[in-house]
Amino acid sequence: MSTSTTKPAPRSRLSPEDRRAQLLDLGVRLLATRSLDELSIDLLAEEAGISRGLLYHYFGNKHAFHEAVVRRAADDLIAQTAPPVDGDPLHRLTVSMTAYLTYVEDNHEGYLSLVKGAASGNETMRAIYDEARSALTDRIFREEAQSEIVPDTPATRLIARGWAAMCEELTLSWVEEPGEVSREELLAIMTASLPALVGAV
Amino acid sequence: MSTSTTKPAPRSRLSPEDRRAQLLDLGVRLLATRSLDELSIDLLAEEAGISRGLLYHYFGNKHAFHEAVVRRAADDLIAQTAPPVDGDPLHRLTVSMTAYLTYVEDNHEGYLSLVKGAASGNETMRAIYDEARSALTDRIFREEAQSEIVPDTPATRLIARGWAAMCEELTLSWVEEPGEVSREELLAIMTASLPALVGAV
Repeated sequence: MSTSTTKPAPRSRLSPEDRRAQLLDLGVRLLATRSLDELSIDLLAEEAGISRGLLYHYFGNKHAFHEAVVRRAADDLIAQTAPPVDGDPLHRLTVSMTAYLTYVEDNHEGYLSLVKGAASGNETMRAIYDEARSALTDRIFREEAQSEIVPDTPATRLIARGWAAMCEELTLSWVEEPGEVSREELLAIMTASLPALVGAV
Repeated sequence: MSTSTTKPAPRSRLSPEDRRAQLLDLGVRLLATRSLDELSIDLLAEEAGISRGLLYHYFGNKHAFHEAVVRRAADDLIAQTAPPVDGDPLHRLTVSMTAYLTYVEDNHEGYLSLVKGAASGNETMRAIYDEARSALTDRIFREEAQSEIVPDTPATRLIARGWAAMCEELTLSWVEEPGEVSREELLAIMTASLPALVGAV
């Protein structure tokens, strides 16, 4: 209850919305190198330097906290992999896939948590995962320039889903064990494969 | 304790190994249209017309029973998708992928259980799934004829993993919602995509 004006606690200046966003950012950073099971309210409270009670005030319960963090992580993934506005389609796809690979490298544990959570039958995780996956694949069709290499048909929509699953498997396999495949080689495989798949049909 | 020789119960003629195998067959058939969670010892006992106690005698506990059923299902998948010995590589790949699609159509729930179990972090399920996946992809490299379309390099080994993930996603998506894509079209996509992916690199 000090009335001193020196060194105010930074959090006292934030609105509840900003404070919640700041805590989510911290949650996403912690999730990068941890599974969701390892991301507890206790850990977040300790890292944020605030009480568990205040965290429950912001997030309600542990499930809601996990969902909010995963949703924020998925939003980050979608934002970071947005292709540039200009350039030829293959260049734009390369930039987007490079960002995707970088994201998975930097957030391996958290990304695995999302993939596992979605696959294990947790409906909320599945919905967040599908949303992120759709954002990544729909983007291929939404952008005018891209449609030069990928016409929008029922078959190419299905192929784009399969291609996204392939890129996920390639990226997770490679990040876990790069073996003799270089980063450039992996990126070349992921980028060249989409037009190759569409061209093969 | 009847000594009559007419109409002996069929199971009395089976060795314990054969009886166990017969129960596993039944478990696999039941799993085709059910999730693993829905496949209980009670259900198997009812369908087999034997006691729960006898089932525990054969399988130990519910987890061991589930593992044995999933392992048997994975073995069935590997056996059923074996490519023919003769023929050109693309034809043999087509036969194998047709069998894969038919397997997933006929055993949708059980196959989903394996995929979900593997993804959710159950180590035994993961091991069985990886074994089945490896059998399917290693086969591409093991057969001499196939190597004409897929040279064995670190990059093509990685591509084969990605391609298998893509085929799984394509098949599960299509079985759940075929939309306007025909069965023939799906098979053409899966078969043509492997040489297309290898050729693109």
